Amino acid sequence: MCDICVMNAVKTKMLSRRDLFKGAAMAGAAAALGTTAATPASAGSHGGGPVDMSHTLSADFPTYFGEPGYSQEQLFKFADSGFNLFKQTINEHTGTHIDAPLHFSADGASVDEIPIEQLVAPLCVIDIAARAAEDPDAQVTPDDIKAWMAAHGDIPQNACVAMHSGWGGKTDTDAFRGFDGKGMHFPGFHLEATKMLMEETGATSMAVDTLSLDHGPSGDFATHYAWLPTGRFGIENMANLDKVPAAGATLVIGAPKHKGGSGGPARIIALV
Amino acid sequence: MCDICVMNAVKTKMLSRRDLFKGAAMAGAAAALGTTAATPASAGSHGGGPVDMSHTLSADFPTYFGEPGYSQEQLFKFADSGFNLFKQTINEHTGTHIDAPLHFSADGASVDEIPIEQLVAPLCVIDIAARAAEDPDAQVTPDDIKAWMAAHGDIPQNACVAMHSGWGGKTDTDAFRGFDGKGMHFPGFHLEATKMLMEETGATSMAVDTLSLDHGPSGDFATHYAWLPTGRFGIENMANLDKVPAAGATLVIGAPKHKGGSGGPARIIALV
Repeated sequence: MCDICVMNAVKTKMLSRRDLFKGAAMAGAAAALGTTAATPASAGSHGGGPVDMSHTLSADFPTYFGEPGYSQEQLFKFADSGFNLFKQTINEHTGTHIDAPLHFSADGASVDEIPIEQLVAPLCVIDIAARAAEDPDAQVTPDDIKAWMAAHGDIPQNACVAMHSGWGGKTDTDAFRGFDGKGMHFPGFHLEATKMLMEETGATSMAVDTLSLDHGPSGDFATHYAWLPTGRFGIENMANLDKVPAAGATLVIGAPKHKGGSGGPARIIALV
Repeated sequence: MCDICVMNAVKTKMLSRRDLFKGAAMAGAAAALGTTAATPASAGSHGGGPVDMSHTLSADFPTYFGEPGYSQEQLFKFADSGFNLFKQTINEHTGTHIDAPLHFSADGASVDEIPIEQLVAPLCVIDIAARAAEDPDAQVTPDDIKAWMAAHGDIPQNACVAMHSGWGGKTDTDAFRGFDGKGMHFPGFHLEATKMLMEETGATSMAVDTLSLDHGPSGDFATHYAWLPTGRFGIENMANLDKVPAAGATLVIGAPKHKGGSGGPARIIALV
């Protein structure tokens, strides 16, 4: 059937039935998850369901460079055509997104080349929220990593080590970028902590709840340049790090898979 | 730091280190997954790691309407700027992607509104590949669903019921669209099977390894109009359905999360 015929066929239907069963079987998901969830090492009150680690993406989501990184245009409307469809325009490094090795290297792995095994990762959450509340330029240090290990044991092989700075709750405020007219102020990973993860652990990804793996004042992107060219990847603008345990959750990282990409928006789900 | 300053700072670095550790810790992933994997009901030789259920997205990926649904433009190049970055332009319904309820309804849930619990789903694979090899217009029928249940038990609550037609291996060929000058020919779900899933099971999503939930010759999108307006969602162009068990795997569906979207490319990972 030709394209015009397809659209005409659709127009003849144009149902407007309500979402009779919207969310009908949510209860079943918890049961299914029960067969897949890791046993949290420090589950506390966190157990029992998947946690959404991605922010909603829109033109309003704050970006590193300050310009909107996302837009969408409606190409077909249900009222006219019988179906809805949008065209999206995306700056890869917008919203909750992946930094592939290729982002900061000449010939590193593109986002579609990240091994699938690295997209299912033990999640280690390093909480510096109290310090960051006092100092927006705070960084994860080797001492923070040592404190995590003292409490929870070694960083697991293939781990994603995530900074929880409290910035995940600031995306609707100017404090998320922390731009003071000269530069930005938000937390990130210190170069020495990055080197420690590389030299002393088998972590293959790092995540932040801020706009950049490097903290806001960074002038040299030292953490990006240390981490990404080694084949490891990053996640920026992660959500809900206050809703998962410090250890024991498993992250399933829905990285985009466009050929040759340097990263892109990702849907990330924690199984806790 | 201003935008120009940021870019200048990046230019001063321009490392070109090789991927020293690319894929270094893959072994660890299997161990991590061992703590999260469901016990396959019919695992056979499938167990042991995550399976990538998404095709690579590029301008070459075949689309329903026959026009390219994806493009990317490089905005920054490592050789010039010290980092790589692309702008993507995406028709939402391209590649391995979600059909949100809003795609075929006036006021259904948009892709960002699909409950997170429905994105972690027991996977039921209905294999019609032998029949589809003889007839490209083949459809999943109620009898196929009954045969699956006779072999594997009830369809679990919150399941994703997937059609494996063998089309996942045809994406590089004209046979994927099966356009004969008048219309398209590829397998899909029959309306009666769709109704059976809605009325007799708690399935909340359906998936196909072809371009559409409805088979190619469909003139009325009967399955789309029956399924999506009820708040259930669909997945099209799913990959690797020949690499997962018929029952027992858990699908983690990395649906995109753009506000108000009707669907979009998704990274989907099966834990087997």
